Amino acid sequence: MITKIGVLTSGGDAPGMNAAIRGVTRYAIEQGLSVTGIIRGYEGLLSHEIMPLDRRDVGGIIHRGGTMLRTARCLEFMEEKTQKEAAAYIRENDIDALVVIGGDGSMRGAQALSKQGIPTIVIPGTIDNDMDGTEYTIGFDTTVNTVLQCVNRIRDTAYSHDRVAVIEVMGRHAGFIALHAGLAAGAEAVLVPEHDVSLEDLCMHLNESHRMGKMSSIVIVAEGAMKGSDVYDYIKEHTYLEPNLTVLGYVQRGGSPTARDAIMASLFSEKAIDCLLSGTYNCVIGQIGETIAATPYTEAPRYHFPLDENMYRLVHQLGR
Amino acid sequence: MITKIGVLTSGGDAPGMNAAIRGVTRYAIEQGLSVTGIIRGYEGLLSHEIMPLDRRDVGGIIHRGGTMLRTARCLEFMEEKTQKEAAAYIRENDIDALVVIGGDGSMRGAQALSKQGIPTIVIPGTIDNDMDGTEYTIGFDTTVNTVLQCVNRIRDTAYSHDRVAVIEVMGRHAGFIALHAGLAAGAEAVLVPEHDVSLEDLCMHLNESHRMGKMSSIVIVAEGAMKGSDVYDYIKEHTYLEPNLTVLGYVQRGGSPTARDAIMASLFSEKAIDCLLSGTYNCVIGQIGETIAATPYTEAPRYHFPLDENMYRLVHQLGR
Amino acid sequence: MITKIGVLTSGGDAPGMNAAIRGVTRYAIEQGLSVTGIIRGYEGLLSHEIMPLDRRDVGGIIHRGGTMLRTARCLEFMEEKTQKEAAAYIRENDIDALVVIGGDGSMRGAQALSKQGIPTIVIPGTIDNDMDGTEYTIGFDTTVNTVLQCVNRIRDTAYSHDRVAVIEVMGRHAGFIALHAGLAAGAEAVLVPEHDVSLEDLCMHLNESHRMGKMSSIVIVAEGAMKGSDVYDYIKEHTYLEPNLTVLGYVQRGGSPTARDAIMASLFSEKAIDCLLSGTYNCVIGQIGETIAATPYTEAPRYHFPLDENMYRLVHQLGR
Amino acid sequence: MITKIGVLTSGGDAPGMNAAIRGVTRYAIEQGLSVTGIIRGYEGLLSHEIMPLDRRDVGGIIHRGGTMLRTARCLEFMEEKTQKEAAAYIRENDIDALVVIGGDGSMRGAQALSKQGIPTIVIPGTIDNDMDGTEYTIGFDTTVNTVLQCVNRIRDTAYSHDRVAVIEVMGRHAGFIALHAGLAAGAEAVLVPEHDVSLEDLCMHLNESHRMGKMSSIVIVAEGAMKGSDVYDYIKEHTYLEPNLTVLGYVQRGGSPTARDAIMASLFSEKAIDCLLSGTYNCVIGQIGETIAATPYTEAPRYHFPLDENMYRLVHQLGR
Repeated sequence: MITKIGVLTSGGDAPGMNAAIRGVTRYAIEQGLSVTGIIRGYEGLLSHEIMPLDRRDVGGIIHRGGTMLRTARCLEFMEEKTQKEAAAYIRENDIDALVVIGGDGSMRGAQALSKQGIPTIVIPGTIDNDMDGTEYTIGFDTTVNTVLQCVNRIRDTAYSHDRVAVIEVMGRHAGFIALHAGLAAGAEAVLVPEHDVSLEDLCMHLNESHRMGKMSSIVIVAEGAMKGSDVYDYIKEHTYLEPNLTVLGYVQRGGSPTARDAIMASLFSEKAIDCLLSGTYNCVIGQIGETIAATPYTEAPRYHFPLDENMYRLVHQLGR
Repeated sequence: MITKIGVLTSGGDAPGMNAAIRGVTRYAIEQGLSVTGIIRGYEGLLSHEIMPLDRRDVGGIIHRGGTMLRTARCLEFMEEKTQKEAAAYIRENDIDALVVIGGDGSMRGAQALSKQGIPTIVIPGTIDNDMDGTEYTIGFDTTVNTVLQCVNRIRDTAYSHDRVAVIEVMGRHAGFIALHAGLAAGAEAVLVPEHDVSLEDLCMHLNESHRMGKMSSIVIVAEGAMKGSDVYDYIKEHTYLEPNLTVLGYVQRGGSPTARDAIMASLFSEKAIDCLLSGTYNCVIGQIGETIAATPYTEAPRYHFPLDENMYRLVHQLGR
Repeated sequence: MITKIGVLTSGGDAPGMNAAIRGVTRYAIEQGLSVTGIIRGYEGLLSHEIMPLDRRDVGGIIHRGGTMLRTARCLEFMEEKTQKEAAAYIRENDIDALVVIGGDGSMRGAQALSKQGIPTIVIPGTIDNDMDGTEYTIGFDTTVNTVLQCVNRIRDTAYSHDRVAVIEVMGRHAGFIALHAGLAAGAEAVLVPEHDVSLEDLCMHLNESHRMGKMSSIVIVAEGAMKGSDVYDYIKEHTYLEPNLTVLGYVQRGGSPTARDAIMASLFSEKAIDCLLSGTYNCVIGQIGETIAATPYTEAPRYHFPLDENMYRLVHQLGR
Repeated sequence: MITKIGVLTSGGDAPGMNAAIRGVTRYAIEQGLSVTGIIRGYEGLLSHEIMPLDRRDVGGIIHRGGTMLRTARCLEFMEEKTQKEAAAYIRENDIDALVVIGGDGSMRGAQALSKQGIPTIVIPGTIDNDMDGTEYTIGFDTTVNTVLQCVNRIRDTAYSHDRVAVIEVMGRHAGFIALHAGLAAGAEAVLVPEHDVSLEDLCMHLNESHRMGKMSSIVIVAEGAMKGSDVYDYIKEHTYLEPNLTVLGYVQRGGSPTARDAIMASLFSEKAIDCLLSGTYNCVIGQIGETIAATPYTEAPRYHFPLDENMYRLVHQLGR
């Protein structure tokens, strides 16, 4: 029987992680459990940094970016020796199950712990929206809106100077951020890792739009598709248009979560605790269609959600 | 065959209406149609205010709140004589079909025109999220996020002064704004028209939370549930807590649309034009489950989406 | 000789108070002093709520609205008995001088303590910008920008519906917020306590502007000049224009401080500590012209800065 | 006698330029003048792109970033032949005087035109705040606040991961943006072109702060002082701290102006027109101390305002 759970955040921070820490903590306490927070992800299990969490400890954090438990990428956690050590520490502290808030790498860590006999459950939290077992990851909506606000600022200069604004956004393996921000911002084009990029085609379209009277344009590039500076250079060399370049970088990662992220964090948290209480674990929580599901780690790859091809087509049809 | 469409915005303005005007116009032109904009909703059909719209006319508007076509509530449009007059004007201008962006009242206007033989299609745009035939209306996400940002400001003062912040938000017939903003903001309680409100219970909970060490709280009230000032007065009289009151008013209605609203506006626009081109009209476009559907006006009431009861329960469990 | 100071925030909270707490604490420590924080203003001196503050305790707060020390309005502090009690408590805790961050009322409290032999110094912190001894009070710039952002949202609806947006802002005794926000927002008119208001004139101007083709307008009313609802009612009754009303309320008070407020808070803090160390106290810190000055409480009324009449004239000349 | 003026924006766009176009246009019309807008800066004088401006043409722009008249950097305008051509075009169009909104380069262009007998006057508009003849340039406050908001987002990740966030901001010749944003954000250090930078010292301080328990830090680098990537590399190599890097780029330039920028734009505009009407021209408008002055181009270099050394010292004292 579960009476005490641990909670940690791992991997890159994402807006809404604090809302999930709060959700997990308060909903668990509501259900009669006690809660221990682990500091700096899996590293805290090795360096023995933990703290009890009650309702008040997680007050005043729901609207804050980052994670109050801090986070880390823990490379040594890939070794079994380390995993055993962590499992032992969890047992010593009478923690019956672990809630892990993070992305793909964090899920692998949770899976490793589950092999050491620790019941774990994963709440998907990463800005990239690229996790198996869910259509939505906490942090994505905030990041897309942050990018959108940045593009809207850059748009002022692009308009005032008749420029092509090239904007590189995050997304090493997936183009979700680029695509959603691009459609929302009315970009002329988005370059994503899921699609072959032809800079020749891009320039042809930019030239054509210019001939039709469109004096300024926005091009959004996912870092996984191509370097923004390469796009900039190509436009500079092969057209008479004047590009300018912005690499958004870490601006995209922080900030107060949007309503959607705070809400999803709360719903995922509830589901995670309900699962643990009903004996369902070693699962990743996720949105699948209209329901919030718990999928065993081993089956998660069957629920892989690709980029929406219709949205990809639409951004280019509307952007001219 | 349809070769020319009209587009208008009607009823209360909502963020994302401009994105829909742009989406409708550009996607229609892409499909070979020409587009006429009608100024100030149905009133423009009576006062004969129209303008041609091409790709450039709808450039630089996707990120702007309000509606470039302006809007109005047109009471005289409830009379058949007026509807006939409008239909005649539409025909005179060789407009083959009309896209109406608006809420419930606007849908009734579109339905009236369809009875006069004008093919119409409705794109749901209203901040309240309370339309038949769709789970989502353009403007809702922006408004919820605007409310959230306002609550986060008010939270600073509530915290600093140990107060109960009572915040009245829009929502005459539905509590969607209050519920979503409340869960996202970590409110102690939300009062919505869909649920009976007991101020006695509310005060009991506020007192209990206070005894447990929660020095400040947030209570969100949908205008349709109760006047914020009544909640304020009751707390003032029946507890030792100190409330403060804010009625958010028109701050909630404007502003640059969020990514979700700009994206939904684009997807709804595409669907609306695709429908018209394939001979489907006298329908309301909407999100139903995971698809974007077109539902005949007469069947729309069968797709009525109520408040999420789980979210309602959860906000109160987590808010203490 | 001063070796230990106390710091408190008092009266209404204002953005930048946390930046001042941080500035006072860190600069004092840099100068070899130790620092005690007093909770909830003067009340904390009576209820004996204090905490030591070191550099780390004030980390991560510079960008937060409200005040980490919390604040209160303490009516009983107007009695000499209470003041003596507070002074005794200050002495017991070896606090050699007190830094008070707050507005007019807080300055009177500090003056009262100074009469009981406690060296005090005041850092002006109030959103209203209406304190003797300074042209600038911390919080003002943030509030004006918050109002501006709200007006910009309301503008979308006013434009879309051809309305006169009436917006009531804070400012019981002074029109600074209304005037600055009004000029920045391009308001048609501002109503401030410093000037007689003629609603007849206002309506005449609104009508004239409308005749000249200005379809929507913004009118900003300081709460001290008139109730927003009275302006709304008058316009409704005496013109054919359609007004709408928003009372901004507590939205104006919180939020992350602007650069100017965080900077002024830092500069005022430095000056306050420098004064204490050089034996200058019982003063209010303030911006007077281009310098940061320390003015004895008794002389502060000689430095009373009224509304800028040129700005008042200009807002009406440009707003049409 | 002046009866008709021209107005143009030139050089890099800056938030508040639209507020200045509005201010110039409306105040000039109020004084009985007529106004011509010139498109794309000095280039518009050569390509003959002008448009009449009345009160309504400049409505709804005060809150918009960029410039409705668009802008350009016109290299050929450095040749006298081109200047003569422009002067002739101005005369042909009966434009009696020209208001130029821009930075240093734009002032040189205005000075060149004045040598060709065209009365000109310059309103300082550039985000860098580095113009002779004024302590303030329109756009600066908005940019500093935009940087501050970006830093606040980046802070979340720096805190969550125990990182040193290195942030490169604009400022090729002057460190105003870096210094003001740095003091407001509570940066550990700012690197500006006005001061020698020792990366060795920087790392020593970062290490020391870390030893004292400060787990994350912010370092702001003006592009004119050093490349952000060089700072990043040095920290990476010479400490055990983990840096991350963001180059803010064009995000800094756009966006809705802050209250201060919209107000200064209005006050500068009024002064510019008042000068022209009273026969004072070939001047740059500026804030000098507490007054708004008009300084002849030739004397402007005498009013050169350097970085505030006290603020520079203070940011480092408070940032630890």
